[in-house]
Amino acid sequence: MDNAVAEIAKKARVASRQLAIATRGMKDAGLYAMAEALVDMDAMILQANKDDVEKGKENGLTPGLIDRLTLTSERIRQISQALKDLASLPDPVGEVLRGSTLPNGLRLRQLAVPMGVVGMIYEARPNVTVDAAGLGLKSGNAVILRGGSAALESNMAIVSVLSEALESVGLPADAVQSIDTLGREGSVALMRARGLVDVLVPRGGAGLIQTVVKEAQVPVIETGVGNCHIYVDRDVDQDQALRIVVNSKTQRNSVCNAAETLLVHREQAATFLPSVVRALVDKGVTVHADDETLSVVGKMPGVVAAIDDDWATEYLGPEMAVGVVPDIDAAIAHIGTWSSGHTEAICTTSLAASEKFTSEVDSAVVNINASTRFTDGGEFGLGAEIGISTQKLHARGPMGLGELTTTKWIVMGDGQIRE
Amino acid sequence: MDNAVAEIAKKARVASRQLAIATRGMKDAGLYAMAEALVDMDAMILQANKDDVEKGKENGLTPGLIDRLTLTSERIRQISQALKDLASLPDPVGEVLRGSTLPNGLRLRQLAVPMGVVGMIYEARPNVTVDAAGLGLKSGNAVILRGGSAALESNMAIVSVLSEALESVGLPADAVQSIDTLGREGSVALMRARGLVDVLVPRGGAGLIQTVVKEAQVPVIETGVGNCHIYVDRDVDQDQALRIVVNSKTQRNSVCNAAETLLVHREQAATFLPSVVRALVDKGVTVHADDETLSVVGKMPGVVAAIDDDWATEYLGPEMAVGVVPDIDAAIAHIGTWSSGHTEAICTTSLAASEKFTSEVDSAVVNINASTRFTDGGEFGLGAEIGISTQKLHARGPMGLGELTTTKWIVMGDGQIRE
Repeated sequence: MDNAVAEIAKKARVASRQLAIATRGMKDAGLYAMAEALVDMDAMILQANKDDVEKGKENGLTPGLIDRLTLTSERIRQISQALKDLASLPDPVGEVLRGSTLPNGLRLRQLAVPMGVVGMIYEARPNVTVDAAGLGLKSGNAVILRGGSAALESNMAIVSVLSEALESVGLPADAVQSIDTLGREGSVALMRARGLVDVLVPRGGAGLIQTVVKEAQVPVIETGVGNCHIYVDRDVDQDQALRIVVNSKTQRNSVCNAAETLLVHREQAATFLPSVVRALVDKGVTVHADDETLSVVGKMPGVVAAIDDDWATEYLGPEMAVGVVPDIDAAIAHIGTWSSGHTEAICTTSLAASEKFTSEVDSAVVNINASTRFTDGGEFGLGAEIGISTQKLHARGPMGLGELTTTKWIVMGDGQIRE
Repeated sequence: MDNAVAEIAKKARVASRQLAIATRGMKDAGLYAMAEALVDMDAMILQANKDDVEKGKENGLTPGLIDRLTLTSERIRQISQALKDLASLPDPVGEVLRGSTLPNGLRLRQLAVPMGVVGMIYEARPNVTVDAAGLGLKSGNAVILRGGSAALESNMAIVSVLSEALESVGLPADAVQSIDTLGREGSVALMRARGLVDVLVPRGGAGLIQTVVKEAQVPVIETGVGNCHIYVDRDVDQDQALRIVVNSKTQRNSVCNAAETLLVHREQAATFLPSVVRALVDKGVTVHADDETLSVVGKMPGVVAAIDDDWATEYLGPEMAVGVVPDIDAAIAHIGTWSSGHTEAICTTSLAASEKFTSEVDSAVVNINASTRFTDGGEFGLGAEIGISTQKLHARGPMGLGELTTTKWIVMGDGQIRE
């Protein structure tokens, strides 16, 4: 392992022991100190960010990436407010999850405790740096951040501000550290820091997440890829279904919980497809239609023939694959083949269909008569969101602060031995 | 990925969909059918096992390994009974873990659902083959087993018996499959079967577990290594502490929850060490003593000087490292440096010491005045035990059937869209 990363990880481990026993009051004071320091040091951070943005433009970053990279006073104020909002959430640490008294008198309690050292690897969004530091602190974890070279100057400035703020209220400065200056090698070393990093959370595009999952030797929580489906059943309220499909696709199309594929029961195809395709096209969506859909809606602008790849694609944009299925089993099978396991929805008036769909579709979130766009920690009432897990180990679906904790059994005896 | 493993994993996926919706009644019928088939086909299994044992002896397996490998009619009867016992446990699938109604009227429920496809890699113990199949079935998962070449014939015989038994009661034969004939390559392919295997559980020695953790690209639950400590505090009931130390070390010394290191507060050293070292030596334990311990107990048979490696060693045998610490902080620091995070115990009469120890020691299980030997799914009342997790992600400490499940959110609406 890279020595520089090992040194940082060891300092994080020491800091994590202090954070693990910090009270909620101390952690919330840290969140406020960080929030205020960001606003106080606003000029220094904006200057560093300006350097990143200029370099990004020279290097030909897309306007979208430049926008994500760019900080303003107003954005810093929002990021700062988000830290204060975190302080208002309950402390996930110390919750008693289960307990019992055994026949021999041993008293068992299982408590939520911090993970310890959490690594985060993400792409050039300086706001995630603050976000990760805040979530880590509130859940009692030290964080090691790797934020992508395009945001190097911004992240270094932010981490130094946050670190000093923590120190100013008696919390360890090493609770928030960056390995951004260590480049790609540092990133790989972090993925392999067995025994030093308790969990690694990649946040970003599918490529980043795949790389981390494949190279990591530390436990990983995979987040985010959402190839979400809506199935419109034979028994359906077409008006309601139309609103749900349009909302799921177009309310915001660049996010993981936007719908990417619409499957329509054959008996509804003739009446539902013309109106839904028209509504989507009117909203600027390109419809990738299968043969049966094409034969129903005919040739029209905004509609193209679907290819196999369309079923596998998370468009993250104004495009939707549309197909006809003979029955609910075919819809469930299609979803089983192509879904990324994020969110799927059924539009139906049938109790039997809703029960079948929710029990047989194997995804993190399964909706009945509701937009896929609700899969979100904030919408679910979890408070802060770490990300949306698409794996099955540890966390599945929207992750709140509780998902950054693990457990500890406390066994209280008065001399019990095993016979 | 190895094609043969991919084929097997795809069949497991199909079977897992059937198991996920199987009722408890169907799964318990499967457990009984497997239990009865093992006894009925006893002669065929014993013949296959005899071949393995003979080959093992030719290959120079140790008597301990030969013993673990060997089946008898009586052992088959016990294994069969264990399957029936599993049937009596509650079904972990379908439990509602949380739920709420959102301000917009959406009703949320988070349910326990099966993982899907569970891989198990273990060493030459044919009983684990049955155990894994039973645990998998009860938790609604299909299993893919890789049991080590020394038990090849036994495992093939057992898997064919179990598979046929499942089919006889209308459950999918592919719910239990083996990749034992595919050798080392098959094993590596299983570790890399991303998207086909939901979780991989290695069971066995430290070497096996390290290999799996490093090579796997699928999520892994790390089990078992236990370098467990007992700290005897300044304020202590010496008689009770003596019983706990001797029990923790000697009640069964080949298991992961046996204690490996004893740390004694300096103020107790002069009075406690002579009696505890004598008691350990009388039970046949070799004591690896640090300088201070040596100077207290003097030269005696069964006591040798400790070296640094002793603090890191899981002896799994009649040996124990013994050291003196100046205070509880030093004990906690020692444990933080050397422990594998399995189980640690404190012997104390002080409330403050017990609180400090339980809050600052970062292990799966922390005991106050109780033997380390209690860290066990059966002892904890969890019913069946999958293993003891020493990682923090997903499960920590003894794992019951519930740890072979993940969750699914069901969101019930009546047309909600996101504004």
